[in-house]
Amino acid sequence: MTVSDRLTNVPASPIRKLVPFAQAAKKEGVKVYHLNIGDPDIKTPEVMLDVLKTWDRNPIGYDLSQGNPAFLESLLWYYHKLGFSFINVNNIQVTTGGSEAISMALFATCNVGDEVIVFEPFYANYNSYAIVNGVTLVPVATELKNGFHLPDKKTIEAKVTKKTKAILICTPNNPTGTVYTKKEMDMLVSIAKEHGLYLLSDEVYREFCYDGKKQVSLFEYMQEIPKQAIVLDSLSKRYSLCGARLGCLISLNEDVIAGVLRVAQGRLSSGFIGQTMATKLKDVPQSYTDAVQKEYQSRRDVLFDGLAKIEGVQLPPKPEGAFYAIVGLPVADAEDFCTYLLTTFRDNNETVMMAPAAGFYGSKGMGKNEVRIAYVLNCDSIKRSVAILKKALQTYNSIPGINTT
Amino acid sequence: MTVSDRLTNVPASPIRKLVPFAQAAKKEGVKVYHLNIGDPDIKTPEVMLDVLKTWDRNPIGYDLSQGNPAFLESLLWYYHKLGFSFINVNNIQVTTGGSEAISMALFATCNVGDEVIVFEPFYANYNSYAIVNGVTLVPVATELKNGFHLPDKKTIEAKVTKKTKAILICTPNNPTGTVYTKKEMDMLVSIAKEHGLYLLSDEVYREFCYDGKKQVSLFEYMQEIPKQAIVLDSLSKRYSLCGARLGCLISLNEDVIAGVLRVAQGRLSSGFIGQTMATKLKDVPQSYTDAVQKEYQSRRDVLFDGLAKIEGVQLPPKPEGAFYAIVGLPVADAEDFCTYLLTTFRDNNETVMMAPAAGFYGSKGMGKNEVRIAYVLNCDSIKRSVAILKKALQTYNSIPGINTT
Repeated sequence: MTVSDRLTNVPASPIRKLVPFAQAAKKEGVKVYHLNIGDPDIKTPEVMLDVLKTWDRNPIGYDLSQGNPAFLESLLWYYHKLGFSFINVNNIQVTTGGSEAISMALFATCNVGDEVIVFEPFYANYNSYAIVNGVTLVPVATELKNGFHLPDKKTIEAKVTKKTKAILICTPNNPTGTVYTKKEMDMLVSIAKEHGLYLLSDEVYREFCYDGKKQVSLFEYMQEIPKQAIVLDSLSKRYSLCGARLGCLISLNEDVIAGVLRVAQGRLSSGFIGQTMATKLKDVPQSYTDAVQKEYQSRRDVLFDGLAKIEGVQLPPKPEGAFYAIVGLPVADAEDFCTYLLTTFRDNNETVMMAPAAGFYGSKGMGKNEVRIAYVLNCDSIKRSVAILKKALQTYNSIPGINTT
Repeated sequence: MTVSDRLTNVPASPIRKLVPFAQAAKKEGVKVYHLNIGDPDIKTPEVMLDVLKTWDRNPIGYDLSQGNPAFLESLLWYYHKLGFSFINVNNIQVTTGGSEAISMALFATCNVGDEVIVFEPFYANYNSYAIVNGVTLVPVATELKNGFHLPDKKTIEAKVTKKTKAILICTPNNPTGTVYTKKEMDMLVSIAKEHGLYLLSDEVYREFCYDGKKQVSLFEYMQEIPKQAIVLDSLSKRYSLCGARLGCLISLNEDVIAGVLRVAQGRLSSGFIGQTMATKLKDVPQSYTDAVQKEYQSRRDVLFDGLAKIEGVQLPPKPEGAFYAIVGLPVADAEDFCTYLLTTFRDNNETVMMAPAAGFYGSKGMGKNEVRIAYVLNCDSIKRSVAILKKALQTYNSIPGINTT
């Protein structure tokens, strides 16, 4: 019995594929600093945890397919607070994490074999959603040296074919931390208009912008291109709710929303407990978000100050948002080095886990010496992680036969 | 901007499509008896709710993509208790509800355009998973008068083509309540063997068997056809955990399991809170399951005794399991009648919601006068629902121009 070709083609997540090595290390009693995954250590707001502690609903039944009505109201309050008062509850489909929102958007806008333009490096799981949905991702290169900002309009337009249905962006960006400027967003919107494309904007890191910068959201263009704009969102990072699997898809395109609701009916509903926790968005104080933002900015600074002192590390300009960085290492094969960290290298019985960056590129051979670092640990842990990384690079590069760049 | 053809093709769920009418009725203060959806009123075990009330984990982080390790151990305990001690933890992939398990199984076994044999009427959402995964469902008819049991081997084999990759069954069955016999399961396994097909068995109603009957599980054949057997499971009904979105896919086929894990990595993890609740399977007493089974048997009996007294209703033999029945009504268009119940008919300001059965068939024109009734309410509510149904049929059929059969 053979499995389907497409199952074979689904890549292992570069964020998760080394997990068995990490588990083995932990079983040996090794402490692993997890910089591989965007799973923050920041506390979930207490007001949400109180929903669990005072739980009185029984049984745990299905929710509505579109989403829990009180959660939808809570989301509406949030988007209105951001200034997008034109959004109403019928423009929102609740999803099981941002993951489902992205997958639904690809399904809704593309038939099998259609193409979606993405900027590489891009969030690795886009590869998996693309294969699950039979869509071809067409990567446009961005460069480390200019902070992974977009190339000019012509370079992007050169990738548009008859099969192109959408441009998929992420701002603030996972894995690069890039926050697209107003000029870049204007350009993307003009390309979408001129070529009749959907613009899909993954904005799960909206609040994570540093040095006084602000995200330019696709919402600001939504009324200008009401049929073409789809925002993909998640509460995972904003409220440290990764494990609650809460996201949503927002569009003014009624056919898109009606269609994804039918898809949503097929899977019945998103989780009732998580959605009930998330009815409390209004009760999370602004100080929570502000403190989180400040904390991540400090972490980024500590990470970059530390990495700058390691010989051979190629750093981009400091990322403007999110909590990731793509960094070049003085190794030939970052996956081999990341595996070495988990299986072999220990410093005082501690090691570091990072995500090899090759899986974040669509073009073969790109990013081989790069890693994605998620700065989701506190500043002390990041300092310690950088120290381990420095030692590990020295030891690794002194192994006879290791073919450094 | 057009949406994708496939989005357009996703059908509205017959279980959910009338929800807006039900919501409107409720807004008017009408009480709606929900017999449309398998969302039981049975209480979730207290030992699971206690997990919420004593919750001390913060933040709510991602879980492992394969599943929460303690939940996996809990599932293993359950399958071993059933007598399937050959199953080990590496054969299980945790899913976000049984829904995701079914969708993953279709993706894993079929390429776009491949065919899967199903027995109609079948669980309506299979249509949606089929379209989402680009798979063609090939229906084989079963009949109300013999309790929707399987036709003979030749009739099934006549539907096998070069594109057929799997047979998908559900036992105890949603929507018919049929429990396949050992002889039927033997036949399905022999067809799978002879034609080199996967056998996908949706067994979420395993414990819901009545009159002393027992389910014959695909697990009993799993070692005989280790590469071909995939069991799809869910905790939703067994423990009244529909809203926790907990399911799993089990197979001895290592390529299937490795592949679905890669798909699972793409969507990161199933919910952390629900999985933590479900680590308590061992602590749910057998008396819980026994009481639930007894309760549903009584409900079924009350429903069938009541329906038997309504003129023109076509009843199958009493269903052997699950908590659904497909019933013929003396109307030309059951969807129109179900809509009428929600929008127009009230008896003492109460009405009933049922699922029109046409959406549970793959063949056009089938089941037009049938409904699926989920007997998920207590006996008094079922008695009352039947009384409402009886009156509504009389009133509806006296409307001039209503074209009854």
